[in-house]
Amino acid sequence: MARENTRELLLDVGKRTFLERGYNNSGIETILQSAGVPKGSFYYYFESKEDFGLRVLDRFAETYDDRMKRTLDDETLSPIERFRRYFEEIVERFDSGQCRKGCLIGNLSQELSDHSEAFRGKLEEIFRQWEARYTECLQLAIDRGEIAPILPIREAAEFWLTGWQGAMLRAKTSRSSVPLRTFLDVMFRHVLRVQP
Amino acid sequence: MARENTRELLLDVGKRTFLERGYNNSGIETILQSAGVPKGSFYYYFESKEDFGLRVLDRFAETYDDRMKRTLDDETLSPIERFRRYFEEIVERFDSGQCRKGCLIGNLSQELSDHSEAFRGKLEEIFRQWEARYTECLQLAIDRGEIAPILPIREAAEFWLTGWQGAMLRAKTSRSSVPLRTFLDVMFRHVLRVQP
Repeated sequence: MARENTRELLLDVGKRTFLERGYNNSGIETILQSAGVPKGSFYYYFESKEDFGLRVLDRFAETYDDRMKRTLDDETLSPIERFRRYFEEIVERFDSGQCRKGCLIGNLSQELSDHSEAFRGKLEEIFRQWEARYTECLQLAIDRGEIAPILPIREAAEFWLTGWQGAMLRAKTSRSSVPLRTFLDVMFRHVLRVQP
Repeated sequence: MARENTRELLLDVGKRTFLERGYNNSGIETILQSAGVPKGSFYYYFESKEDFGLRVLDRFAETYDDRMKRTLDDETLSPIERFRRYFEEIVERFDSGQCRKGCLIGNLSQELSDHSEAFRGKLEEIFRQWEARYTECLQLAIDRGEIAPILPIREAAEFWLTGWQGAMLRAKTSRSSVPLRTFLDVMFRHVLRVQP
């Protein structure tokens, strides 16, 4: 396998393993084994487990941002329809994955924020990036008269992300997408006051 | 030390250790060492690490429920004042702990829900108990005319707990109580529509 491909493969297997088992509980050996990459070569690609973890997050954030843009910039839908579609797609993926795993960024935030400034900084940066995407889309919805500006728009975006992360956590604990659906329903109907 | 005291001490040190390091990352040896209890005696008190973890949760839930009741049943305040006080006290404790650790139940939910049915069931039970307390207090606020019933009350309580857990997660990642304060502000002003 070409060097670049091996590196990408390790990042991809790392993402899946961290999502399934958390960071501390994921051994490098297990990741190498799942990837079918010889033991000795890990430190050829990465300085340390932490370095590897941070690169996994970089790659995840990049890929995820592409997906977010695909939905939130979809001109065939109105801004609020895009916003709703974005979250409904997450609910569908969560359901089809037996209501497990949740959000990589949320999971690692919970696990690592107190223990590594490097991880905490990176995770915070990704959350901020998501908030900025929410803000853009909600602002567009206001500009087009779809919703009324009931809150300062950045506050609304922060509140949304916060609640969504909590809903994901409750969805994992209840092994059901009901908390996600309840959250969206309350937000659209009672906070944004959008008619279904 | 009497047997009962040693058991209680281990549960207490376990709670603190799980809150600081998570479950998987907390070794039994470390806990015994912190408690000053001889190595051999752990299995005298507990069947396994999982059994120990579940007993830590039982004890935490019990103590926490007493604290909750103290605030939410405080007749010197109106129901909404009690509700606000309850969350404001958590924000104060979070601030005084350098914005770390967060909520034991939220943390362990994130870490363990996918991996142990015993933990998931117990954590879900504790969340449900909290939702029931929120429901009681919000219902009282409606009965006394402090708030209007804008949502079915159980849905409101679930939404509140969900959002609060997310706000705690974001507060840890941003190492700041701002997400907690923003959440409370939006909930009281825009969802419950209570004047400050």
